[in-house]
Amino acid sequence: MSQRWVRFSHAGNTQFGTLEGDSIQVYTGDMFANPVKTDTVLNINDVKVLMPAQPTKIIAMWNNFHELAKKLNLADPVEPLYLIKAPNSYLNPGETIQKPPTDDKVVFEGELGIVIGKTAKAVSEADAMDYVFGYTVANDVTVATILNRDESFAQWVRAKGLDTFCPFGPTIATDLDPTTLVVKTVLNGDVRQNYPISDMRFSTQQLVSMISADMTLFPGDIILCGTSVGVGSMKPGSVVEVEIAGIGKLVNDFK
Amino acid sequence: MSQRWVRFSHAGNTQFGTLEGDSIQVYTGDMFANPVKTDTVLNINDVKVLMPAQPTKIIAMWNNFHELAKKLNLADPVEPLYLIKAPNSYLNPGETIQKPPTDDKVVFEGELGIVIGKTAKAVSEADAMDYVFGYTVANDVTVATILNRDESFAQWVRAKGLDTFCPFGPTIATDLDPTTLVVKTVLNGDVRQNYPISDMRFSTQQLVSMISADMTLFPGDIILCGTSVGVGSMKPGSVVEVEIAGIGKLVNDFK
Repeated sequence: MSQRWVRFSHAGNTQFGTLEGDSIQVYTGDMFANPVKTDTVLNINDVKVLMPAQPTKIIAMWNNFHELAKKLNLADPVEPLYLIKAPNSYLNPGETIQKPPTDDKVVFEGELGIVIGKTAKAVSEADAMDYVFGYTVANDVTVATILNRDESFAQWVRAKGLDTFCPFGPTIATDLDPTTLVVKTVLNGDVRQNYPISDMRFSTQQLVSMISADMTLFPGDIILCGTSVGVGSMKPGSVVEVEIAGIGKLVNDFK
Repeated sequence: MSQRWVRFSHAGNTQFGTLEGDSIQVYTGDMFANPVKTDTVLNINDVKVLMPAQPTKIIAMWNNFHELAKKLNLADPVEPLYLIKAPNSYLNPGETIQKPPTDDKVVFEGELGIVIGKTAKAVSEADAMDYVFGYTVANDVTVATILNRDESFAQWVRAKGLDTFCPFGPTIATDLDPTTLVVKTVLNGDVRQNYPISDMRFSTQQLVSMISADMTLFPGDIILCGTSVGVGSMKPGSVVEVEIAGIGKLVNDFK
């Protein structure tokens, strides 16, 4: 059965638990290794929801959806192409994505995040799912105008690494089949992205296996699967929602 | 007066202190915020030296030395060009840089690291030095053959982010003038790099100021200043030393 894990602060303490309707069943211990059920149940409206994990790294894929590759006329990659989101970019659900002081163009990218549950080093595709704890929702916010303005060096890490440029959450949902999921991004009430995870160039199993061959993945680490068609710019004052049914809706404003 | 800070493990505990000759004056508390001198002095030969900080991120510069730019015919960048070293790449002094299972070409890059001491967001060049705690030595190890093998996406983060590909230390030295420093890299006894920090395109002050405009820098975060001429490949069984007089010598083997 799928469970939806949340992290939150309540009465000055950071805690975690499982969400059902508006009720949070509080757990203690380690979410990934040994969560222990407590007697406490809280209402989600009485807590502040935090990012559901504290990753040592968030790896973000580029060019991982066939439909977007076709639209941009990108070659089919033979191996996963990725960068790292700077930790200062991590943002809680409900908090504000901060506009840079410049007038650079900032875009949203709704994405699925694969959350690692066990230390993974060079795991096989066949074993990869044993290392996946669950799935979350993310917005891979990007300064479009920084990306390619230097001809000699594509500034992926910088353009995607500004403070607050990686909101994720609100939950980590376990025991889902990722190929059934659909990522929907809504900007100021308009549906802008609505694409199926089944269109991924590299599957969840391939990503975990191939990336873990290079970099050991730790519990709480996240692989952002890349985005597909419908990416667009956000004006200050915008509200952006990324929703994946079965996981939840990530809402942030931009100003 | 310059102090050289070290982190180490001793009798099962992780501690830190200042190094003078072979003696470590042990401190307690927070190295960056409020180090408190204890009565304990240890001999460095009785401890295991660890990486001197635990950064939330290590930012690595590309194309930051005039001499290397001239040799490679690179344009003078108008802003710092950088990537992030994956945290799984951090390695202690004295430990082994692990050869990937493939026969890809792996190169050393001896570099100066600027260690941040106070949270820095959009600081001015004039104020930048207030946020610098000191300087360390690093080897920005890179899989040269991964970097540009995909024509559509330069794989900087991956090529420089494999496990063990960022040794740094052994010390953080305070109160140095970085423009007086020289980076020397020795491979199996042969001097391969020997270049002055005064040749940097962007100074310490400019790097801290310009990078902190994009990304908040936290105590312990490190900016690797980029490398200059003399980069070369390492064969398995090599020993690579990066030394900066006044900071120390970082020694690692590769196999």
